[in-house]
Amino acid sequence: MAGSTFGEIFRVTTWGESHGEALGAVIDGCPAGLELSEEDIRPYLERRATGKDGTVSSQRKESDKCRILSGVFNGFTTGTPISVIIENEDRDDTGYDPDLYRPGHADRTYEDKYGLRDWRGGGRASGRETAGRVIAGAIAAKLLDKLGIRVSAFVQSIGEVPVEEGNDAYLRQYLSEIKKAGESIGGVVTCVITGCPAGLGEPVFDKLDAELAKAVMSIGAVKGVEIGAGFMSASMLGSQCNDPDDMNAGGILGGISNGKPIIISAAVKPTPTRGSERHDVCIAPRAAVVIEAMAAITILDMYYRNKNSRV
Amino acid sequence: MAGSTFGEIFRVTTWGESHGEALGAVIDGCPAGLELSEEDIRPYLERRATGKDGTVSSQRKESDKCRILSGVFNGFTTGTPISVIIENEDRDDTGYDPDLYRPGHADRTYEDKYGLRDWRGGGRASGRETAGRVIAGAIAAKLLDKLGIRVSAFVQSIGEVPVEEGNDAYLRQYLSEIKKAGESIGGVVTCVITGCPAGLGEPVFDKLDAELAKAVMSIGAVKGVEIGAGFMSASMLGSQCNDPDDMNAGGILGGISNGKPIIISAAVKPTPTRGSERHDVCIAPRAAVVIEAMAAITILDMYYRNKNSRV
Amino acid sequence: MAGSTFGEIFRVTTWGESHGEALGAVIDGCPAGLELSEEDIRPYLERRATGKDGTVSSQRKESDKCRILSGVFNGFTTGTPISVIIENEDRDDTGYDPDLYRPGHADRTYEDKYGLRDWRGGGRASGRETAGRVIAGAIAAKLLDKLGIRVSAFVQSIGEVPVEEGNDAYLRQYLSEIKKAGESIGGVVTCVITGCPAGLGEPVFDKLDAELAKAVMSIGAVKGVEIGAGFMSASMLGSQCNDPDDMNAGGILGGISNGKPIIISAAVKPTPTRGSERHDVCIAPRAAVVIEAMAAITILDMYYRNKNSRV
Amino acid sequence: MAGSTFGEIFRVTTWGESHGEALGAVIDGCPAGLELSEEDIRPYLERRATGKDGTVSSQRKESDKCRILSGVFNGFTTGTPISVIIENEDRDDTGYDPDLYRPGHADRTYEDKYGLRDWRGGGRASGRETAGRVIAGAIAAKLLDKLGIRVSAFVQSIGEVPVEEGNDAYLRQYLSEIKKAGESIGGVVTCVITGCPAGLGEPVFDKLDAELAKAVMSIGAVKGVEIGAGFMSASMLGSQCNDPDDMNAGGILGGISNGKPIIISAAVKPTPTRGSERHDVCIAPRAAVVIEAMAAITILDMYYRNKNSRV
Repeated sequence: MAGSTFGEIFRVTTWGESHGEALGAVIDGCPAGLELSEEDIRPYLERRATGKDGTVSSQRKESDKCRILSGVFNGFTTGTPISVIIENEDRDDTGYDPDLYRPGHADRTYEDKYGLRDWRGGGRASGRETAGRVIAGAIAAKLLDKLGIRVSAFVQSIGEVPVEEGNDAYLRQYLSEIKKAGESIGGVVTCVITGCPAGLGEPVFDKLDAELAKAVMSIGAVKGVEIGAGFMSASMLGSQCNDPDDMNAGGILGGISNGKPIIISAAVKPTPTRGSERHDVCIAPRAAVVIEAMAAITILDMYYRNKNSRV
Repeated sequence: MAGSTFGEIFRVTTWGESHGEALGAVIDGCPAGLELSEEDIRPYLERRATGKDGTVSSQRKESDKCRILSGVFNGFTTGTPISVIIENEDRDDTGYDPDLYRPGHADRTYEDKYGLRDWRGGGRASGRETAGRVIAGAIAAKLLDKLGIRVSAFVQSIGEVPVEEGNDAYLRQYLSEIKKAGESIGGVVTCVITGCPAGLGEPVFDKLDAELAKAVMSIGAVKGVEIGAGFMSASMLGSQCNDPDDMNAGGILGGISNGKPIIISAAVKPTPTRGSERHDVCIAPRAAVVIEAMAAITILDMYYRNKNSRV
Repeated sequence: MAGSTFGEIFRVTTWGESHGEALGAVIDGCPAGLELSEEDIRPYLERRATGKDGTVSSQRKESDKCRILSGVFNGFTTGTPISVIIENEDRDDTGYDPDLYRPGHADRTYEDKYGLRDWRGGGRASGRETAGRVIAGAIAAKLLDKLGIRVSAFVQSIGEVPVEEGNDAYLRQYLSEIKKAGESIGGVVTCVITGCPAGLGEPVFDKLDAELAKAVMSIGAVKGVEIGAGFMSASMLGSQCNDPDDMNAGGILGGISNGKPIIISAAVKPTPTRGSERHDVCIAPRAAVVIEAMAAITILDMYYRNKNSRV
Repeated sequence: MAGSTFGEIFRVTTWGESHGEALGAVIDGCPAGLELSEEDIRPYLERRATGKDGTVSSQRKESDKCRILSGVFNGFTTGTPISVIIENEDRDDTGYDPDLYRPGHADRTYEDKYGLRDWRGGGRASGRETAGRVIAGAIAAKLLDKLGIRVSAFVQSIGEVPVEEGNDAYLRQYLSEIKKAGESIGGVVTCVITGCPAGLGEPVFDKLDAELAKAVMSIGAVKGVEIGAGFMSASMLGSQCNDPDDMNAGGILGGISNGKPIIISAAVKPTPTRGSERHDVCIAPRAAVVIEAMAAITILDMYYRNKNSRV
């Protein structure tokens, strides 16, 4: 109810503030018998910390060493809650002004809601919270892998520049100029899910696209979500949009997967934190990792929810 | 879990198929003491049946007389579940082919999921299901009105034509030509919420924009959702996007309302049902009524959820 | 949240007041492919209306004809919500005093909570609400039957008199005297679940016994619930209670079924409504039918919830 | 869904195994602005570790130092999840036989459910898990205190011996003899809630007594729960049971609190672990602390849920 839990069967609760003692996730509902160790989670945390691709993201130094505290015994999950923790080693609350409400940040809205706020680096509203999501996403991805389902997210464009083979050099210069100007820039992330069987999604409110939209929009930097042809559908004729092969449906019809690849796009806004060496010119690469995690958690949860659709 | 319930505190469950005996909604969690009768619901059902604006939508003949069966006593709500029913008077299952999977429809995905389907007019996947949502939306709107909150959705564009003063004549001709060609066309709906206090939204997964995205994307015809500047944010610089007045935020920062108008846009795809006199050339006007209903339910639910944010 | 929904996967929502227009249940999460008609539900409603056993319960005249309005097509469930309705034919609100708070009834507490109440025959707090539960219980029982699980509840004692072979005549006289005195009497109901596989129950809060305790205690007349040896355990030595065959455990250990019969007992209080020809001398027989329904719903829901316990 | 979360608005998730690295609780939905530190929790953990009363419980040595890792800033809660952790200092998995299924324990049922188990001291099924509940209960109690609500649980009887003034000496000898015999003994715990306003409880399934029954029955050692007169009601006449002052109702009518003290009794079975110096002769005193915690969490959650009962 209070909002820090996601999923119905594969259920993720995250906790922790940007400059608090630690942060973490509790995953309840992970089936017993999955081989699991910190090594399975580490690569995902590293990708989140640096962005997939060093060219478009600054190199932050967050070690993000995680520890599994429960739910795993002799290397296998036991079916009980998996508690994973990351100690915040480099806590530093200097340089934050408790009286400043930064534009584009949640400083004021948190204070409006709660009457007070943890003003150290955005507190709970910081992007750092997403480390907990990525922990859960790594576990979900391992379970999906056993089911032959693969979730992959990548940056499709930065500003108005498509990210594609051949324009690496141009992109590098584009980003370097934005950085020099003390600016940041937005981007679009696309997430593709392959191997997903037909039948996932619970009509009418918990449609697969509805759950994915919530999952992706719950990431702070995301301001828009599309399935398949998305906003282009709005200017299509019926015969164009509803083609015989349902190419524009993005793998979902009537809220239920149809067995084809599922395609989601998300608009990532430019970070409001700008003008320092430490901050990202474009957070889309890091957002992509979190989008991938949230999509993986959602697909897995909907897979489990679908188990009771027939006698 | 199975997907026909929406909301945590103001909780709506819909039921019914397109050509079943009846359809309806059960609203649990409506506070006691609200004056309520069928008259409060009727105008919303009429708007849904015809579209707001006769120029862009065909004139269907659905009487949609609803009856309140419980939860109201002597004209006031009692705090117990409000059951509202609409009998399907014009049931007609002729003209549907059980063996046909129509492109753009949920025929095949329902059969993939459940092993069988009610093939009469889309069954539960029919747009007719939204009548139950609109019933609940009408009650939510009446409660929001007492709180000074107003939710309003309208068609912003049809195809690539903006809906605005002065181009009525052009739009009429545009739609008439699409109809003559046996085609349908998509549109964009914008929903504006005014009077919403700061503080609504539950970080981190149940952000206000995340809940709204789910609510709107759960409507069959919707393929994309934006908050504030939406996909335009993706090509903005940080200084443009995060303006001092947070104009691009669409009334939500860090997932919490900031007291300014909340702006949502939705892409509505062209209906796959085409080529008959009875069907809509553009369903965006009818979708707008459902979007308004879902936004009203969501805002009210988040309003109630926010009551325990402070000691 | 508001309390009229039970179950996570097999999800039951009931609605309706004692003397309202109608009452009913919406069952969401029933798997597709179950053969179902009103005939499957009727015997359960009849047992609820009269008590299993005419000797201990008065013969009320409630026809309780139910209609299935959705979720069933060509005789089989479709996976969508099953809406079942009973019209209240004999509505009669005479003889109720809006200003009277009857001892042992919920008149005053409803008014305390909601500020107003439907004072016709207890409104929502009436035992009549349980018809909705029994509808859902009948469907659950049919699904359980396919799994080889059988739920059966019976009256174990009335007052201090055991209900057992040989003392029918004595019981009949005992009840007749209580009736003559214008009194009512309580009883104990025992519910036995056989064929239940080991493994049902979700530690730690949603233990099988915890869910059953809630299910049974949610029936208005029930004031106590025991599993296995129950309150007798409190005066047992460790070696007596924890016998090698776990006979005292009642089929549940650590909140998880162990494959043996599950034994629940419930204390049913005497009805506060007394002194008229129409009312029950002992409502335990009717309560038994509702206890059976609630146990069936719970076991089925926990069966479905258990499906994801292992990879 | 998987069972380690309790409560709808004040929401508690516990995690951890008896001999794992650590255990803890995440409390989501605690309002912002409550002064809170580890000092508020410590006394409750100490009472749980030793039992309220040294005479009836052995003196275990668990330091149970807890650390608050999130959700508190500058000494006050922030409205975000409160993560509290206890490191397991004295982990010791010697003396447990992986191949032994102990009677009265959950060894076999866990293995039946999950296919494997953490066999170190009962793993998640150990009474040690209740430390997480007590952490949350301490926070709930502090919030209830501000509302003038007090929850108190005490041992009413041990075996068949009432715990009351004057028979301390007898009880001590009774327990000492049981211990000498290598035995354990059960008990009855009574929980009294005073200062609770009328109106708490959500009909029809989430009645206050139903939620309390689940809360208390979710404790491993509890085998029975009563409200008010409980099982005595079953042999009462209507006029006795439903007295004008509702003394037998235990503070709840129709599932809603009536403003009088709420009375719950619970049967605590004798611990199956016997015959060692370290184990409790009677765990009722420790169970009482956990019952108190669960009742406090439930009452607080229902208090918050009741906030939307009227317009």
